[in-house]
Amino acid sequence: MGGSFALALQATQIECEFVGLDHHNANQERALELGLVDRIGSFEEIQGCDLIVLAIPVDAIIATLQRFSQLKADQTIIDLGSTKEKIVTQTPPHLRSNLVAAHPMAGTEYSGPDAAIPDLYEDKVVVLCDIEQSGMLQKEKAKEIFQRLEMKIVYMDAHEHDRHAAYISHLPHVISFALANSVLGQEDRESILALAGGGFKSMSRIAKSSPKMWRDVFAQNRDNLLQSIASFEEELAILKSAVEEEDFDQVERLIAKANRLHKIL
Amino acid sequence: MGGSFALALQATQIECEFVGLDHHNANQERALELGLVDRIGSFEEIQGCDLIVLAIPVDAIIATLQRFSQLKADQTIIDLGSTKEKIVTQTPPHLRSNLVAAHPMAGTEYSGPDAAIPDLYEDKVVVLCDIEQSGMLQKEKAKEIFQRLEMKIVYMDAHEHDRHAAYISHLPHVISFALANSVLGQEDRESILALAGGGFKSMSRIAKSSPKMWRDVFAQNRDNLLQSIASFEEELAILKSAVEEEDFDQVERLIAKANRLHKIL
Repeated sequence: MGGSFALALQATQIECEFVGLDHHNANQERALELGLVDRIGSFEEIQGCDLIVLAIPVDAIIATLQRFSQLKADQTIIDLGSTKEKIVTQTPPHLRSNLVAAHPMAGTEYSGPDAAIPDLYEDKVVVLCDIEQSGMLQKEKAKEIFQRLEMKIVYMDAHEHDRHAAYISHLPHVISFALANSVLGQEDRESILALAGGGFKSMSRIAKSSPKMWRDVFAQNRDNLLQSIASFEEELAILKSAVEEEDFDQVERLIAKANRLHKIL
Repeated sequence: MGGSFALALQATQIECEFVGLDHHNANQERALELGLVDRIGSFEEIQGCDLIVLAIPVDAIIATLQRFSQLKADQTIIDLGSTKEKIVTQTPPHLRSNLVAAHPMAGTEYSGPDAAIPDLYEDKVVVLCDIEQSGMLQKEKAKEIFQRLEMKIVYMDAHEHDRHAAYISHLPHVISFALANSVLGQEDRESILALAGGGFKSMSRIAKSSPKMWRDVFAQNRDNLLQSIASFEEELAILKSAVEEEDFDQVERLIAKANRLHKIL
């Protein structure tokens, strides 16, 4: 997320120095090699930057915000975490106006510097949460940055964001992990996978996603996630019952209902 | 499936006339307009063709095979149905050697003549089932055709095919339909869908698929499908419990396990 962010900003000819920091040395070196950042900086140097972008797991965002001392009134922090409510409520009050809580609805199943691609954010939605708690300058700065990235800005309450993100992003990941594990659990999994076509590949693509990142997302958004899983389980049970009872008219109706998604999407 | 098949064969400069038949007049006309077929023929004319390709729902394949009278020894029928066991066991004995039961692991969420694309089959797997029951000439003909389409041929028992296809193709469709219905069932579904990113789009793409086609696949492969759904439900329950119990080390292990899929795939 961070590498793609840097590449996309560089492409807009923005005039600034990109300073990187990662807790893995290998990632830092690779980011330099790939030109994602101009140099690596210490925590103190990062803390002095005009714009600080936190592209790290959500629990690391919360922990990192605790480590920042008072920032200047014209410094901006943008966090790219996938859950927002705990981040905004746990941000130290003296930093709250510096922070813009953002969730770009973009990403791939890959992570790390080599996963950086320049057009990751283009034409995607970014949700800015509880924006009234950010400073005026920070609001404008974030707006300018996301417009540079050609993103569509949506404003939302952090609580509502987390409920919605559970359905649209976290639940699909849970499902993809469970689907992958269900096939891997079969005795003849290699023969099964030999038949994989586009449908299975679509449905299992995000099962490649980072364990560390997603454990944290699920931890942060546990209650909403459990609710979305329960709702999915109900829908699955309805379809399964129709198949069990050989009520294929009902199966056809349920599929036709699902088809309607794409009239909205 | 049929239109893409015709386009792909045409692209190989094969010398033959393409005669089409569809129970919807509009589809016939559109297939002509798009150049998928050279002309529309009657059922009797189709029955006289050297190669008859059945690209219709699985129950229609079974019904159509009942309507064929005795064919000549050098005629070949290839059916492209997504389930195979009922088709091979219900083929009239006098047609069995004419038939090659094939399942190309290819397709999109779209159907009808306008969904035809010339490279649908390229580099994909095609499963030929119970091939020892097909005639020698028919085996060779099918092999030649699928090689022309640059497909990877896999041979499999029809019974085994159906078990495997349940996991790799039919279950992912069930899941995608249930996911779509679960989001559509939410009160604020439009706000939720406004946040849709790549993950949700991947996971809901096949929820666009044809109700009629999939009702028949599920009907034909009911028992295997129910088994695969049960296995998926178990895996989902394991992941859900770990989230419920806040055992996020276990969540991380389950995700890491799912990641292994892509070492095989």
